[in-house]
Amino acid sequence: MSKPLILQTDFGLADGAVSAMYGVAFSVDENLKIFDLTHDIQPYDVWEASYRLIQTVSYWKAGSVFVSVVDPGVGSSRRSVAVKIKGGQYVITPDNGTLTHLKMIVGIEEAREIDETKNRLPNSGESYTFHGRDIYAYTSARLASGIISFEEIGPEIDVESIVELTTIAPTFDHDIVRGTIDVLDVRFGSLWTNIPREMFKQLNVSFGDRVEICIEHAHRIVYKNILVYARSFADVSTGETLLYANSLDRMAVAINQGSFAKAYNIGTGIHWEISIRRAPKIIYE
Amino acid sequence: MSKPLILQTDFGLADGAVSAMYGVAFSVDENLKIFDLTHDIQPYDVWEASYRLIQTVSYWKAGSVFVSVVDPGVGSSRRSVAVKIKGGQYVITPDNGTLTHLKMIVGIEEAREIDETKNRLPNSGESYTFHGRDIYAYTSARLASGIISFEEIGPEIDVESIVELTTIAPTFDHDIVRGTIDVLDVRFGSLWTNIPREMFKQLNVSFGDRVEICIEHAHRIVYKNILVYARSFADVSTGETLLYANSLDRMAVAINQGSFAKAYNIGTGIHWEISIRRAPKIIYE
Amino acid sequence: MSKPLILQTDFGLADGAVSAMYGVAFSVDENLKIFDLTHDIQPYDVWEASYRLIQTVSYWKAGSVFVSVVDPGVGSSRRSVAVKIKGGQYVITPDNGTLTHLKMIVGIEEAREIDETKNRLPNSGESYTFHGRDIYAYTSARLASGIISFEEIGPEIDVESIVELTTIAPTFDHDIVRGTIDVLDVRFGSLWTNIPREMFKQLNVSFGDRVEICIEHAHRIVYKNILVYARSFADVSTGETLLYANSLDRMAVAINQGSFAKAYNIGTGIHWEISIRRAPKIIYE
Repeated sequence: MSKPLILQTDFGLADGAVSAMYGVAFSVDENLKIFDLTHDIQPYDVWEASYRLIQTVSYWKAGSVFVSVVDPGVGSSRRSVAVKIKGGQYVITPDNGTLTHLKMIVGIEEAREIDETKNRLPNSGESYTFHGRDIYAYTSARLASGIISFEEIGPEIDVESIVELTTIAPTFDHDIVRGTIDVLDVRFGSLWTNIPREMFKQLNVSFGDRVEICIEHAHRIVYKNILVYARSFADVSTGETLLYANSLDRMAVAINQGSFAKAYNIGTGIHWEISIRRAPKIIYE
Repeated sequence: MSKPLILQTDFGLADGAVSAMYGVAFSVDENLKIFDLTHDIQPYDVWEASYRLIQTVSYWKAGSVFVSVVDPGVGSSRRSVAVKIKGGQYVITPDNGTLTHLKMIVGIEEAREIDETKNRLPNSGESYTFHGRDIYAYTSARLASGIISFEEIGPEIDVESIVELTTIAPTFDHDIVRGTIDVLDVRFGSLWTNIPREMFKQLNVSFGDRVEICIEHAHRIVYKNILVYARSFADVSTGETLLYANSLDRMAVAINQGSFAKAYNIGTGIHWEISIRRAPKIIYE
Repeated sequence: MSKPLILQTDFGLADGAVSAMYGVAFSVDENLKIFDLTHDIQPYDVWEASYRLIQTVSYWKAGSVFVSVVDPGVGSSRRSVAVKIKGGQYVITPDNGTLTHLKMIVGIEEAREIDETKNRLPNSGESYTFHGRDIYAYTSARLASGIISFEEIGPEIDVESIVELTTIAPTFDHDIVRGTIDVLDVRFGSLWTNIPREMFKQLNVSFGDRVEICIEHAHRIVYKNILVYARSFADVSTGETLLYANSLDRMAVAINQGSFAKAYNIGTGIHWEISIRRAPKIIYE
């Protein structure tokens, strides 16, 4: 039985590009089950592509085939690769940092470079700009349908050689945890940090306790305040700020039914640092 | 054979949340047919979620399973419920008003509270913020695939106890019909009222006749003018206003190839009232 | 085995309209495979609908059934038609220009007018405004599933009678090619012209050579400059302009990782003309 094929791009859905990829994949195997991760990655934003994969891949079965085409270097000498990650899922993508989080957090078991002489939509030789359709959709559909094996994609390459974007590991320092703001929960304006719940737990903060968070951008303080550590949004008032563990088991900051990111102009990336500690006791005398 | 599963959320499609729900559902049953209603409900807008269900549910067969996750109270004590509506379709949702229109217009046959101790994605116990994935997608997929029966979802509850948002019934008063503006046809800027075509018919207006409509917001008149009752947009000039019966058999107001809502700053909800009567005859002497 | 059904509309995905179409199609045949081309065609933009079809249709197998509902004249006397194009795919649409590019570039083999007395969702007789659901989704699903044949859709009509929007053919005049800017690659801001790569080749320009392009709107020069003819974006610097052959084998103009359309306020349509010639040699003395 064929495996599900899940597509991610920065193409948007307003034109026919994604549908052309579907058409190519469906022509390979009419019984293929094709799904979308998202096609709304910001154009060229490889970091976001990497993050959306880590957010999603583990909820799909071993053997599932992901394709991610966010490809500022299309037509350059950047490699096209296919990897098998530790959970058994496959990802096919340009090797440009899209695999950063999966490599770092889940681990890559095996990597292969796509042999584009063999794995290319027939009669697409003159188009240099739509590898999403001509190479990625075609090759991933053939892998998902079982027409080719992972080995037939191309020669094995060193897992260590897979390109990684710069990341900064979260740290715990006896009474403070520090990390970066990795991504926004776009629709709700929450900040998702790279601080795991397990690391935060070392602060011994309980639900309902108050914490002090400090957000710095390029070492300038942008936000510093005390808020409550809550199980979920419903534990605080509408419009109140909170710290919580998100659906990826990482610490997040939000305003209940508001947008923290918009309220305080917070961005994402390694230059956006966040620290969390138990709120100091303030004693009025 | 499994039943179709149709998802509605306010998560948007820009991140991986919906794809994680798909992955969970697909893991329950690889042969499940999964579709989208919409994921662009305005964040926390339970009213809109309720309306989009009534707009859609009856076009899907008896047995179809809908999931709607617009959930400002996630993590609170609000119930998670599953209902069987009169047409034979199922809806699984937080009990927060999302079922308002279905309960009022179609009718709910039976309601059950989800027993979250039994119906929860294995190993998701520490996440309190993503019930869409951990409870709703998981439970609805098991219902749609026939792994559990409706009865196994949890204990029966009183249909009357299902939460309803405030609505105001349309009225007919010998020469005038009154109602509220329920929702916009977002893309085209038309106003969709809660006045049924059948009630409007009592005014004995024929296609091509002129009517006077008056729109008030919080009892202030926002728009009052005479326009034609048309079979469809093509019966009036480009840029002309019209009254028509929409695809839900309710009265609607539009500008042909323009946006009525933008043109006159019209909003939606129970504080936006509309009245319709036959246009008065104006006699110049 | 049923054929894939691919939907295109200008309805957007924010409300329940597309899902109602899916429900109708799925009710016709539970095993139907239904896909989206796009639902983000600008409201009423028949030209864009026509273009997205030509961009996509050939990547789907013979027998695939496309539905396109961009229908400013819904409810008017405009015909509803079904055509079989030269590649063997079917398209069902209002006859309002949506078939312009397919007719011109691919060719239409046979055309039929939909007999709406036979091909209409049962019990939908009073709704005049949602033909997308009541006629197009219903009829196309029955064709795709094999319940009706192409012949049963309605009487044959003259292919020549199919409505075409005005287009201007590209021209080659010994040292210059001229065409129009047909459409934007929305997400990336590139300009897609109607000049085929084959016609451009007659200029004998090689990759890396420089060309002069001139863009005029209503005969006023909007942009005139020299840029490089590149195999793909990766051949030029970030922020540099380029001319390239796009995924439809037509000439296109872009800024690598920028938006050409936004940078120079370029629009689309037959009043946006572009000419390309070899860059003149400039000799400094």
